[in-house]
Amino acid sequence: MAIELQILGSNSAAFAHNRHHTSQLLRVQDKYFLIDCGEGTQLLIKKYKIKLSRINEILISHLHGDHYYGLMGLISTLHLYGRQSDLHIYGPPGLSEIITLQLKYSQTRLSYDIKFHEWVPEIAQVIYEDTKLTITTIPLNHRIPCSGFLFREKPKKRGINKSKITQKLTPVQASKLRNGEDLYSETGEILYINQEVTFKPKEPYSYAYCSDTKLIPELANTLKDVDLVYHESTFMDDMEDRAASTFHTTARQAAQLAKDANVGRLLLGHFSTRYKDLNPLLNEARSVFPEAYLAEEGKKFVINH
Amino acid sequence: MAIELQILGSNSAAFAHNRHHTSQLLRVQDKYFLIDCGEGTQLLIKKYKIKLSRINEILISHLHGDHYYGLMGLISTLHLYGRQSDLHIYGPPGLSEIITLQLKYSQTRLSYDIKFHEWVPEIAQVIYEDTKLTITTIPLNHRIPCSGFLFREKPKKRGINKSKITQKLTPVQASKLRNGEDLYSETGEILYINQEVTFKPKEPYSYAYCSDTKLIPELANTLKDVDLVYHESTFMDDMEDRAASTFHTTARQAAQLAKDANVGRLLLGHFSTRYKDLNPLLNEARSVFPEAYLAEEGKKFVINH
Repeated sequence: MAIELQILGSNSAAFAHNRHHTSQLLRVQDKYFLIDCGEGTQLLIKKYKIKLSRINEILISHLHGDHYYGLMGLISTLHLYGRQSDLHIYGPPGLSEIITLQLKYSQTRLSYDIKFHEWVPEIAQVIYEDTKLTITTIPLNHRIPCSGFLFREKPKKRGINKSKITQKLTPVQASKLRNGEDLYSETGEILYINQEVTFKPKEPYSYAYCSDTKLIPELANTLKDVDLVYHESTFMDDMEDRAASTFHTTARQAAQLAKDANVGRLLLGHFSTRYKDLNPLLNEARSVFPEAYLAEEGKKFVINH
Repeated sequence: MAIELQILGSNSAAFAHNRHHTSQLLRVQDKYFLIDCGEGTQLLIKKYKIKLSRINEILISHLHGDHYYGLMGLISTLHLYGRQSDLHIYGPPGLSEIITLQLKYSQTRLSYDIKFHEWVPEIAQVIYEDTKLTITTIPLNHRIPCSGFLFREKPKKRGINKSKITQKLTPVQASKLRNGEDLYSETGEILYINQEVTFKPKEPYSYAYCSDTKLIPELANTLKDVDLVYHESTFMDDMEDRAASTFHTTARQAAQLAKDANVGRLLLGHFSTRYKDLNPLLNEARSVFPEAYLAEEGKKFVINH
């Protein structure tokens, strides 16, 4: 199962250099997860021809405006389009109060229900689970409660090598083989040794979104071997002090973390408006960790082993 | 004193056809008034190279998102730019609560003070006054409390015709002439008859912003002889029933109101997304009131007698 990440915006603080505030869309088969939602996100969704109706889950990392001021507009537009199905919003404490207050004053009774899932700051918590995927919060260290999100596919089932199977399998037997079990006859004789008749499954993929945070070296444990990691890198290394005092990270720090965690690829983002040209930032990261990339608007990153 | 209105956005409800939500900038000499502030307004302010720091007064007509979802982003950007001077926000009850709640959760202590001026719905109330200008609310008829704004220049002073003055005037005497008074000597003899030594002042200008509303025919009294009137015209006349049921106005209705009020020019706006081409709407209005124009993004309208 391939997943695809599309960057909608990745600038920090103020708009600049035609760069928008943070938002990303993660596509996992037919599921669309919107991660953060800065002002104007719905315009970018339109620009990149993303079907709004496919978004059922929205995750908000924290309540600084550059990460969520586009959310009310998106909620309103979904209502205008007559959406019926539930919208799940995962965010920090306070988000539901903010949304509910604005709906109260606009006297809007939405055409659909919002299901709020407010996560608990400072603990890693499973906030979403379906048959194929879990999402766990990643506690970060920012000026206000802030969380990243770790998307992890569940271990995949083994494939059956039909050329090695001489009899018709019942659904129960097939399921056992896919789960890695050997098959026995009713009288207890072995029919198939699992490893002889099945293929090794593909490795489950993983994506980590690390929103605004001061460097947390211990995050290397959480991010260990993750395929694709987005990590904020607001500043370059010559501004390490400023990064620390504003609870942000430098490109070099993010790259060192990616290296320590042995991740597949690193995406840099949340760029300070001081950098018009982002290549120096990219070069700084690549000098430590070559598989670093810029999370630039519109770009897509696919994980497909 | 010329005034200039610039349209930043004028689409209703959802974004469409590259048209943004409602916002306008009114320039009165060195004073900038921002009227409504839909999502993305700060991007349009940047696009049209308007100096953010010049905006000291923001007026919000009502709490439907397409008229104010860009306000928090603007407030945050002003803070990031280190603004020091007070920002005055005029809006309906509830607006200060919405802003304050979001600032609380972002733990933001703004670099400047916001002075909230919440107007009272359903009454015409003077909400702003300086030496040259008053702004009065215009109660409208929408689904939630909604107000327009009438900008009216104060009557101008008369100019002194220096060629008719043979003596040096004291400041008090000059002021009396400018205010339309005759001048007498200390012994009570007439020195100058005002009309003989002064020029008639220019007519004061006026601008009315009529945000979302069902047609209010009696508004013709309020709008009598106003130089420039923006009035919503969400629909065309074949949708008069829908306009009424959604508390909106048709282009023909707006034009008839403009005609009844003998206004100078009428600006149509708050276009429904159903109209990609706006010319039929314009033509409908002009068939009733020829001095009708489309409030399209970027356009400027100047009042200068």
